[in-house]
Amino acid sequence: MIHFESDYLEGCAPQILEALRQTNLEQTLGYGEDPHCERAADMIRYVFDCPDAAVHFLVGGTQANATVISSLLKPYQGVVCAETGHIHVHETGAVEHGGHKVLALPARDGKISAEQILNFVQAHHSDFSREHMVQPGMVYLSFPTELGTLYTKQELLDIREVCRNWELPLFIDGARLGYGLEASGCDLLPKDLPAIADVFYIGGTKQGALFGEAVVFSNSELAEDFRYNIKQNGGMLAKGRLLGIQYEVLMNEGLYFSLARRADRLADRIRAAFKHKGIPFLVDNTTNQVFPILEIGAIDRLTVEFGVERWQIVDETHAAVRFCTSWATTDAAIVALEAYINCNY
Amino acid sequence: MIHFESDYLEGCAPQILEALRQTNLEQTLGYGEDPHCERAADMIRYVFDCPDAAVHFLVGGTQANATVISSLLKPYQGVVCAETGHIHVHETGAVEHGGHKVLALPARDGKISAEQILNFVQAHHSDFSREHMVQPGMVYLSFPTELGTLYTKQELLDIREVCRNWELPLFIDGARLGYGLEASGCDLLPKDLPAIADVFYIGGTKQGALFGEAVVFSNSELAEDFRYNIKQNGGMLAKGRLLGIQYEVLMNEGLYFSLARRADRLADRIRAAFKHKGIPFLVDNTTNQVFPILEIGAIDRLTVEFGVERWQIVDETHAAVRFCTSWATTDAAIVALEAYINCNY
Amino acid sequence: MIHFESDYLEGCAPQILEALRQTNLEQTLGYGEDPHCERAADMIRYVFDCPDAAVHFLVGGTQANATVISSLLKPYQGVVCAETGHIHVHETGAVEHGGHKVLALPARDGKISAEQILNFVQAHHSDFSREHMVQPGMVYLSFPTELGTLYTKQELLDIREVCRNWELPLFIDGARLGYGLEASGCDLLPKDLPAIADVFYIGGTKQGALFGEAVVFSNSELAEDFRYNIKQNGGMLAKGRLLGIQYEVLMNEGLYFSLARRADRLADRIRAAFKHKGIPFLVDNTTNQVFPILEIGAIDRLTVEFGVERWQIVDETHAAVRFCTSWATTDAAIVALEAYINCNY
Amino acid sequence: MIHFESDYLEGCAPQILEALRQTNLEQTLGYGEDPHCERAADMIRYVFDCPDAAVHFLVGGTQANATVISSLLKPYQGVVCAETGHIHVHETGAVEHGGHKVLALPARDGKISAEQILNFVQAHHSDFSREHMVQPGMVYLSFPTELGTLYTKQELLDIREVCRNWELPLFIDGARLGYGLEASGCDLLPKDLPAIADVFYIGGTKQGALFGEAVVFSNSELAEDFRYNIKQNGGMLAKGRLLGIQYEVLMNEGLYFSLARRADRLADRIRAAFKHKGIPFLVDNTTNQVFPILEIGAIDRLTVEFGVERWQIVDETHAAVRFCTSWATTDAAIVALEAYINCNY
Repeated sequence: MIHFESDYLEGCAPQILEALRQTNLEQTLGYGEDPHCERAADMIRYVFDCPDAAVHFLVGGTQANATVISSLLKPYQGVVCAETGHIHVHETGAVEHGGHKVLALPARDGKISAEQILNFVQAHHSDFSREHMVQPGMVYLSFPTELGTLYTKQELLDIREVCRNWELPLFIDGARLGYGLEASGCDLLPKDLPAIADVFYIGGTKQGALFGEAVVFSNSELAEDFRYNIKQNGGMLAKGRLLGIQYEVLMNEGLYFSLARRADRLADRIRAAFKHKGIPFLVDNTTNQVFPILEIGAIDRLTVEFGVERWQIVDETHAAVRFCTSWATTDAAIVALEAYINCNY
Repeated sequence: MIHFESDYLEGCAPQILEALRQTNLEQTLGYGEDPHCERAADMIRYVFDCPDAAVHFLVGGTQANATVISSLLKPYQGVVCAETGHIHVHETGAVEHGGHKVLALPARDGKISAEQILNFVQAHHSDFSREHMVQPGMVYLSFPTELGTLYTKQELLDIREVCRNWELPLFIDGARLGYGLEASGCDLLPKDLPAIADVFYIGGTKQGALFGEAVVFSNSELAEDFRYNIKQNGGMLAKGRLLGIQYEVLMNEGLYFSLARRADRLADRIRAAFKHKGIPFLVDNTTNQVFPILEIGAIDRLTVEFGVERWQIVDETHAAVRFCTSWATTDAAIVALEAYINCNY
Repeated sequence: MIHFESDYLEGCAPQILEALRQTNLEQTLGYGEDPHCERAADMIRYVFDCPDAAVHFLVGGTQANATVISSLLKPYQGVVCAETGHIHVHETGAVEHGGHKVLALPARDGKISAEQILNFVQAHHSDFSREHMVQPGMVYLSFPTELGTLYTKQELLDIREVCRNWELPLFIDGARLGYGLEASGCDLLPKDLPAIADVFYIGGTKQGALFGEAVVFSNSELAEDFRYNIKQNGGMLAKGRLLGIQYEVLMNEGLYFSLARRADRLADRIRAAFKHKGIPFLVDNTTNQVFPILEIGAIDRLTVEFGVERWQIVDETHAAVRFCTSWATTDAAIVALEAYINCNY
Repeated sequence: MIHFESDYLEGCAPQILEALRQTNLEQTLGYGEDPHCERAADMIRYVFDCPDAAVHFLVGGTQANATVISSLLKPYQGVVCAETGHIHVHETGAVEHGGHKVLALPARDGKISAEQILNFVQAHHSDFSREHMVQPGMVYLSFPTELGTLYTKQELLDIREVCRNWELPLFIDGARLGYGLEASGCDLLPKDLPAIADVFYIGGTKQGALFGEAVVFSNSELAEDFRYNIKQNGGMLAKGRLLGIQYEVLMNEGLYFSLARRADRLADRIRAAFKHKGIPFLVDNTTNQVFPILEIGAIDRLTVEFGVERWQIVDETHAAVRFCTSWATTDAAIVALEAYINCNY
């Protein structure tokens, strides 16, 4: 069985294990106040060209989302997002647990537009019953989206403009940020993230780390006392340096990006193999997730040999499945999959 | 500088790093539903002699406390604990963030008694204004306590009796559980924990793991749907097997206990050295934390060579400091400290 | 200007003011533990034929909804409702403030169906990622709905069946319950409410009381310790008897129902007048709210003389407005409105 | 039986009932946006000499406290108060339900001092583990306290200074504000409240209204979007004018103060009667609550004829009871009590 179910099936990039080994007996202060975290933060500020940013390391995505969101909203405010947004669908109500409503907008291929946000916000503020409604207090986007699609730079700039005009912090969930930045056709550079978002994170868990998400507040004022929030939300790792060490490795010589690039190229090969056979896709995308639409019988046969996630029923006879590549996907696995596709469709 | 500030200054027991290396390219399902977590849970059930217990792995202590407590309480209930309890003092209000009051009782050497709990609960239920007060809904203890002291088995049995009579789940925070069980004079065995507590955890972070706390519900009914709670509280690690692998190693051939035993014995040597010089202690204890009371000038001199935590002012000229030993403390460090104490007090 | 904006424009039924005057100097215990509350609860149990029900009086609807819902859900559960449900739209996220997600389903004329609920609940429990999603924990309906429409008895029985099969408490928001029960075509009797719902409330604020909602737990076990919840949610009125006194009056000789019946009949006359002129309606309903669809210019002219709520844009040239009748609506007001409609459409 | 159990045993000052009767058929907008609320707010701003204050009307004290506090704190902050403070003891954890810890300081006769607050805040900010602790975010005082005692103007000015230096909003719970301001020996004037507190409330429920608390934000910036908070906390009364009408009456010709003054003088007579007999008091106070310490047998005899609240055990043979006077206490009741005291002690 060759596995493509997710991008967190394996441990971590070997360089990270090696760094953990080398540093194992160092003695450092806990809770992220150690030289590794400091250096990793510096490296991130350099790579993403945001010298004044505040960088905090958290263990996982749900935790990062819940902590950032509850730190930015007033009690009566909610977070605007796509109806397909991870915080709305797959975090067991962590945002609501923190007291806030997720204000979900209809999504197209996992994306929402500046115009949608503007209309929603204007509608709220022009409603004479607005005090009876949750006030939009920030905007959450995923880049790439949960469907592996990407916002263009212009789309993000447009969203940023609405956010600034309405004083809504813009938060970009980058659980798979590298896969987005390295995708063919992506017109964003790392430095665009802090320029566009008030806060974003650089996902590690799905991109070669054992775990970890680096939260970057471009506007460091928004991060005031953020460490209290981290602790209160159960996200302050005692041996915080484990996060610093991992990001030191990932930011070193572009490893974060080269691992992602390779995974994206392998995903391109899967897409090409299906396309060659005329197989349609749930969405047109270029990152490390591939969503072909297959006959249900074909899926049953496929999954004898290849592990995929059954994503979504499309019609009575077809469903979309998801293939994920990652830093750990082997060429051999891709070759085997290509051969299978060529023979079976 | 030789460091005794805490028991989480270093990485992890080398056996754990090695296990991570060996398993690194295994492909497993995420979120704790993998064979390592399953096997680690089995080993815990065996070692703690609780074949029907439910075992869940969380990343850290604050997270474990907040998740367990909010899963057990009704909205209007609070958790009874010692005023020195970690949840009351050092978790940035994580319990309150989840909506619950911490009902702190006066503590003696970090401990509360069955009688105190009984009086408190009876007072609540006999108060004709009780509906205007937070109802005690469970009891939280630390073993060892935050001051490194231990409850005797009888004390715990007495508390259990009160808890059962009043239908209050008893939760034991075992962030340093091994150091307690291996302390000289401790009359508890591992199997006593599930027999006494409804839920407890086996701390890994401070006992040789990179991170991790194994939450054990002796009464597995209390753990129904607990995984939803973990996810909602941001505690479900994507690569959950990292926790399973670590506990497999720690439970193997008693490593968890032998690491703790050694640390306790090293702490005994620190205590003996101070005692020999007639130095008093903040508390009389036998676990891996040592709290001598020193003159403030002596502390300033000491801390040039040895890292300790300045714990508490005792009077105008004296303060207590904390020395921690751990799995990583070297004999050489203890020898150097013994020599220093012999020469300087 | 003649006002039809809402059903809470005036004070209260004169009988209530008179009862307040007569009881003003009585001395009673506070917080709802007085003979008036007791007697009002008995009257409700009699009128709604639920001798074992637990009855609690709250001040307002948002408070009643938030308190009941948070008392019934576990932390990781949400409340299923129509997307038009008051708790989803017009309570400023009070449910989320209590930590719970509102699980909104697409609505038809303000209603959801047993089938929708069943599909949603089944989809949750058959999803292998369900622990990453908010678990449906109860169902909330409004009777009448926010659009003044009614569920038939059969529709409610079908919903009840799904709820019982899946152990989901069914909660009916009866802010306008009387207007529903007295509407032409309604096939429910008061006694059907406790037979169908696990908990419902008998709205007072919009039905002739100064304020107040009587929450009825048909299944009194669900109400255990509910008074703690009331207090914690800020809903325990010090002079609780004010609520008891009002419900004594409303339940006396069917006043609650006769006030509602008259208002419904007046609304029928408004509907008839518009229908006579061929004016369409946003929904086909029979309660005290009337939603004709008018040309926007016509609305501007109408609102010079009659106060209505501008409800919803329908197309570029038309919008729906809302007329409310209430216990306080005068015949003269209806006559004037009928004349206006006859002349102007 | 003559009742002195509380100051909310009866309905309301007759002038209020009369005003409700006169306005009953007026038609006004709901939710506090009506001319009565507007006028009442103006009257309050005039009487308390705070022309720029924001005034909001809530139904009850617990609701007012929870809503104000959660509107002012960041998630990781708590509210500093006396251990006897109502929010800590008698609100079923409403503050914690909103996510915040109550940081209780030892109290003396129900009061805390500027020095205590300063020490606590300084200790927090100088603690190197402060991010692991709840940050003090505001200060809550009761005037009068829950024990009927009063802060002097100087004590409050000192507290204000600490609060300003540390940017902690100061919130004064004035559930019995009038009884405080009218007490013999009180050196505060109404205008001192807005000058000292950032927000305070003028209690109605215990001072002659049916219900209601007028929350005054001296610093109206702190009240931004406060109505959203009110709604979210279930405190926005549909017929908001009921609150406006009551405060119009109470603020008219000083009724609020004259009712309180009379109650205080009646309480003085109770105190004098006990003092004449050499009976000691739990606290030395001058407001409408009287706390004599009596033999337990004497209490049993007393309570055959007079209703009091059994307040607190003092020693094995003595307990303190509480007598409350109010706007509704009759001279005859006081005369009867004086006679009883004279004869029985």
